[in-house]
Amino acid sequence: MTWRATALTLFPEMFPGPLGHSLAGRALREGRWSLDTLQIRDFATDRHRSVDDTPCGGGAGMVMRPDVVDAACAAALEGGVARPLVYLTPRGRPLEQALVRELAAGPGVILVCGRYEGLDQRVIEARGMREVSVGDFVLSGGEPAALVLLDACVRLLPGVMGGAESAEEESFSDAAAPLLEYPHYTRPVEWQGRRVPEVLLSGHHAAVARWRREMAEAATRERRPDLWARHRAAG
Amino acid sequence: MTWRATALTLFPEMFPGPLGHSLAGRALREGRWSLDTLQIRDFATDRHRSVDDTPCGGGAGMVMRPDVVDAACAAALEGGVARPLVYLTPRGRPLEQALVRELAAGPGVILVCGRYEGLDQRVIEARGMREVSVGDFVLSGGEPAALVLLDACVRLLPGVMGGAESAEEESFSDAAAPLLEYPHYTRPVEWQGRRVPEVLLSGHHAAVARWRREMAEAATRERRPDLWARHRAAG
Repeated sequence: MTWRATALTLFPEMFPGPLGHSLAGRALREGRWSLDTLQIRDFATDRHRSVDDTPCGGGAGMVMRPDVVDAACAAALEGGVARPLVYLTPRGRPLEQALVRELAAGPGVILVCGRYEGLDQRVIEARGMREVSVGDFVLSGGEPAALVLLDACVRLLPGVMGGAESAEEESFSDAAAPLLEYPHYTRPVEWQGRRVPEVLLSGHHAAVARWRREMAEAATRERRPDLWARHRAAG
Repeated sequence: MTWRATALTLFPEMFPGPLGHSLAGRALREGRWSLDTLQIRDFATDRHRSVDDTPCGGGAGMVMRPDVVDAACAAALEGGVARPLVYLTPRGRPLEQALVRELAAGPGVILVCGRYEGLDQRVIEARGMREVSVGDFVLSGGEPAALVLLDACVRLLPGVMGGAESAEEESFSDAAAPLLEYPHYTRPVEWQGRRVPEVLLSGHHAAVARWRREMAEAATRERRPDLWARHRAAG
């Protein structure tokens, strides 16, 4: 079973973009996942091939029509196993590693990439789209966010990462109580007068593990009080 | 003055990726911003062109060497006006629209894209890199995150967006107390038995503004208690 991604977009030429290279690109060529795109404009029904219209109630920008987006969704869902419909929007639930893992463990995903002011709310509700945000900032459209989500999912697919162990040790692998990662060091041991912390050179595995835990906790406490509060609450 | 972006990466072929199309692509061709890449491997000094080594203290994965990354930074900083060095890492400060605006208002940015377990901590400190995260998930490398950050910045550059007004009205434009955006509606007024909310068809501008404000507050309260708390604290 190939993990299957479909992007609904006005800019299919943006895919696979960075995912055509490196790990994801090799996995794509090896058939560990597939990527297809649907041009939303192909589902417009008027002679101007309109996909958007002015917002009801006034205001700047344009809103993507529910009927056109709905027809594109119907085409994406046709045939094959049911896949979740994810709409990338700053109004969505923040993307976290737990959702990435959930999506990667399923049959694939259909990603709806909005442009302009976004989709008409009714098609989001009618299709039961999962609204997902990659952060509190504004993009030109959903496509860069979709590429990020796909990159995060694809690296978790079987056979994609060389060292499976590495995927498990990383940040956010502990879903209940994530901490930021500890800092990393490698050779040279002395560089520009800066030395690798002695404990990492000591060979004492327990001391190394304790130091790393302390550094991860300190970084989380200082940089991400929100994550730290969740960590403490999870006990 | 062209806004200048430089990506330090092991995969220069990932750029401009999606940013070669649509608004960002046109702006790139028009010279409103520039994008160049530096291949970090070109700064390796041994005969194997190594850019990484095993982590001090043990563990899975590889860490990018401080000396090699530092040499690449030096090359990127050479000549031209000083630009901030941003390292994309899940250990970083979450990317928010305020930082996007700050970067877009400056001369440009140098983006350091890590791979493997990331950079040796010493080069992050020695170069005073700003560590920035696009979210609590793990990517195959910094490149997709860099593309997201650039997309967010480029759309704010002068002359890039058609309707400047639209950029201002969007989510997160109110830095002190951001709310999620209100839901959008457009034609057809009646679709699959779902009707655009009457207030949006009323023509009463004050009522529309009030309804939108209420919807934005409700969405923020329900979906993002963290943002809602900040909004309340900001008064």
